[in-house]
Parts: sequence; C-alpha cells; structure tokens
Amino acid sequence: MPLVGFTGAVLDRADRERNDPAALAAALADSHARLLRLNGLEPEVGAAGQLVWTSLADLPTGSEPLFLGYIDGMPHFAPLALGERHGTVRSPALFQMLALMPADQASLYACARSLVDWHQRHGFCPACGTPTELFRAGWARRCPACAAEHFPRTDPVVIMLAEHGGRVLLGRGPAWPPGRYSALAGFVEVGESIEEAVARETLEEAGVVVSNVRYVASQPWPFPSSLMIACVADAEDDGLTLDTHELEDAFWATRDEVRAALDGEAGARFGAPPPYAIAHTLLRAWLGGDT
Amino acid sequence: MPLVGFTGAVLDRADRERNDPAALAAALADSHARLLRLNGLEPEVGAAGQLVWTSLADLPTGSEPLFLGYIDGMPHFAPLALGERHGTVRSPALFQMLALMPADQASLYACARSLVDWHQRHGFCPACGTPTELFRAGWARRCPACAAEHFPRTDPVVIMLAEHGGRVLLGRGPAWPPGRYSALAGFVEVGESIEEAVARETLEEAGVVVSNVRYVASQPWPFPSSLMIACVADAEDDGLTLDTHELEDAFWATRDEVRAALDGEAGARFGAPPPYAIAHTLLRAWLGGDT
Repeated sequence: MPLVGFTGAVLDRADRERNDPAALAAALADSHARLLRLNGLEPEVGAAGQLVWTSLADLPTGSEPLFLGYIDGMPHFAPLALGERHGTVRSPALFQMLALMPADQASLYACARSLVDWHQRHGFCPACGTPTELFRAGWARRCPACAAEHFPRTDPVVIMLAEHGGRVLLGRGPAWPPGRYSALAGFVEVGESIEEAVARETLEEAGVVVSNVRYVASQPWPFPSSLMIACVADAEDDGLTLDTHELEDAFWATRDEVRAALDGEAGARFGAPPPYAIAHTLLRAWLGGDT
Repeated sequence: MPLVGFTGAVLDRADRERNDPAALAAALADSHARLLRLNGLEPEVGAAGQLVWTSLADLPTGSEPLFLGYIDGMPHFAPLALGERHGTVRSPALFQMLALMPADQASLYACARSLVDWHQRHGFCPACGTPTELFRAGWARRCPACAAEHFPRTDPVVIMLAEHGGRVLLGRGPAWPPGRYSALAGFVEVGESIEEAVARETLEEAGVVVSNVRYVASQPWPFPSSLMIACVADAEDDGLTLDTHELEDAFWATRDEVRAALDGEAGARFGAPPPYAIAHTLLRAWLGGDT
C-alpha cells in the first residue's frame, strides 16, 4: 500500500484522562505542555513542513485549551477561540502547506482542526437550543438545560474507482482546478453500508452500475471532518450518464493515462489529485495491482 | 462473505428528487405512496418479519413526511412526529423483531429510524440555537437565522477481532446479556483512519498492540446511526490489560469455541452476538477463512 495522507500521528489520545479532572489539571500544569499555533483554522508551519507549537502561557484570553493527547509523554493542546466561527473557505496557502507537510504532521493538524471547527460550529444544543459547555477535556459538549451530550462529528465518505476493461472512471467537479480529475465520492447515508454507498453514488453521479466492491484504504480529511473510505468496484459496462450538478465531465482512464498523471508528466491527459488526498493513494494502489 | 445484517434494501434513494419541489409534490400526491408504520421509533412487523406500510392519509396531525425514496416505483415515506423525543432505550420486543426481520427490511427500517431519530434530537441550530426547518425532503435541516445547513449524522465505528496464535480476542461490556461476548468496538475519532482507530481501541480497551489491519465488511447500526466497520488485525502477543470501564471481561477464543457459540450449542463457552449484528458476520468470516 502506498503512503496514506493525514495518517501516522504518534499521538496518544489518552481517552481515560479525558474524564479524569486530576489528570487533566496535571497536564495543564505540566511545564512541558505544548499548544498548537493556529491562525483561525490554519496552521503555522516550519521549514520542513512541521507544525509549530508554543507553551500554554500563550493561550489567548477567552480561549479554551482542547486536550489532543500526549506526544513523547508531553501533553499537547489546541486553542479553541470562543465566539469565532470560520467558513468553509480554505486558502491556497493551506494547500501549499499541506503539500509540504509530512503525513504524521498533517494527521495531527487534521485532529486539531476538525475538533476546533466542530466546537466553533456547535456551541448550542441541537436538542433544545441552549448554549452548551465543553467537557471531556474538549472531546464533547454538554447541555446544562437538557443534559444531552454531543460528540464531534466524523462523516464517512466513500471514494471509489469503478473499473471496466482495464480502465477506471474519473470525473471532475465544476469548481475544481483546471484539468483536475479524480475518483468519484459521496457521503455514506444512514441505513446503508460502505458497499451500498459506493454503488449508489456511482449510479447517481455517472449512471454506472457496479458490483464486487473492494475496500482499499482510509484517511481523515479535515474539511470539516470526513473519514474517506477508498474502494474499487467492477462496472457492468462503460456507458456514462452524468449528473451534471455533481460532475462537469467524466471519462475512463487507461493505466498509461493514470501513470502519466501521477508522475506529473507534461502531456498527461489530466491533473492528478495531490499526494495527501486518498484519491492519489487509490490510483497508485490500482496502478500497482493492489486492488 | 456471509450475509450482512441491515443491508440489501431495494430502495432508490432518489437523491435528485430531494431538491426538486415538483418531484416531491408529485410523490406526496401519488396514490401509491406508502407511509411506514412506527410506534415511537419501533416498527410494526408482519408475520414474516416484514415492515408494515399504510397510506399518507394516515399521517398523524402535526407529523411531517420524510421521503425515503422509491421502491418498485412507489414513493415511500417515514412519519416524523414533531416535538417527540425518544431516549436511547430499546425494548426487548425490538430485538425479537430484528431477529425475525429479513436483512433488507431491517435495512429500510434502519434508514427510517436513524432519520426520524436525528430530526427529533436536532430541531435547533447547533451554530446559533435557533429552531431549524426541514428541507431536502427530510434529508437536512436549515437555520432560518444563520442559514447553516445540517445533515443527518452517520458515525463510523470500528469493530475488530485481534488474532493471535489461531485465536481471537472477545470481550463483554458490563451491561450485556449474561454470557454474551463479542468483538471489541469503538467510534472512529476525528483525525484518524479506520486502521488507526482499530489499533487505538484495541490498545485502550485490552492493552493489545495490533498491526496488519484488514477490512472485512460494513453495515449500518441504527442505534442511533452508526456505520459499523468490521476488521481483523494481528496481535503482537496475547497478554491482556483490560480497561474495566469498557470491558467486564475478555478472553482469546479458539475456532472450536467460536463455532460452538455461532451454532448456539448448549455447552458453548460464550453466547454469540445475534446474526443481525456485524460481529456475528465477522466471526463467521474469520471461521470461514475469509479474513
């Protein structure tokens, strides 16, 4: 299996300490405790693409520390700026940073970003509308009025290559960078399995009937908090009926076309997704016969 | 692969129609439209374990129809009783019904139950606290104050067998039926892959270090809206250090012990999870050498 983006953090998430006020107080008082530097939801990075950390003394007034866990025995936190609310806009600079960032650093960033973003967009109880309070060291919110407990969302998304006659189906969304094509994708809905979601999305978006769905790999995708589940499936035939709301174009790519795109060749038929996206991993796995 | 519970509904989810007011109006006016009969969140079932449907004329006053999709060209709806809020209690009768229900019927029920339950617990905007309005034919809610859009949750859960020396690790939770043992399980968190969640949960709950995680199968689990992701992994050794908050007991089960439990033998060492639970599928797959 090729490398998978946004994975490999050496973080000990210390689930038990989240519910232990004494352990949390000790972590907050630890002189080795580190606080992630964030500008809004975007990271500061060093020359080698690594995340930048500071001490808890730099926690801005009005911010709360979210306990990420331990790295090398040292407690690590992310700052939650209360009252801030960021849109879904991601800067071009962020994608430049991600292209340089080692996967384990991106994995830590994904955890912190998704957690901060969830708190900022979930300050009220969805069951009764009351402002909620942080608990479990930053891994949940609780309603003081109705006692409902709320946990960060992780939304499973299937992303898949339908395969037919040695070629794979690639598409592009209307707002994508020029020339970029990738695997089709969509959210898993309530009441369906991964395999059913792969078949439904491929049919909805491209009119392609698939079977024999095989799991390949998974990774987090922190925009805002998806779990990407990459699969390959066999297409019944190669006819296409595109849902033009979802796909601007689609085509069946040969092995040579996929290889040229992944290698960034000048004459490549399409631009491949970046290495930190699981579609890249999926295309490399298919090319390598690992699917 | 053995049968997987809660899968196989022949439902066409008709994603495009959800955003099409004319199509939705036509579905609501269709004389063949069917409405699921629910008592709270629990289904009515027929003699063969099938779901019971009625016409939209039976929609109770104050309820809204949630559009599930088409079956055999006929629009199918679930009733959303506004203002009702059900706890997490599931009746013993429900589990008796599930034991009789064909997987495709359980799959439809899972979709309806998770959707109704999500609406009932998410009537307010988590971003600003304002009461939200149903849109997308029942597949989303929207805030009239801040315009935030909210979608039903699907929470990925890993459930796994750690394997060592031809045996697999099984555990039991404190509140489980007497004698019941099953695969360990836990929610996938933000910033981690399926493989990382499997390793983290196995270490947290049982002190077991695993590698070589292999995906086996998935199914929805509508209590309230999980996506169960079943895996097998190789354990480094067979020592156990239990987190007694999570596990009351755990042991390494042999093939003969697993076979006896799945076959419901009188002298079996443990009681197996029911066939509609993916842990059952996972144990059968392991026994059959499909992992």
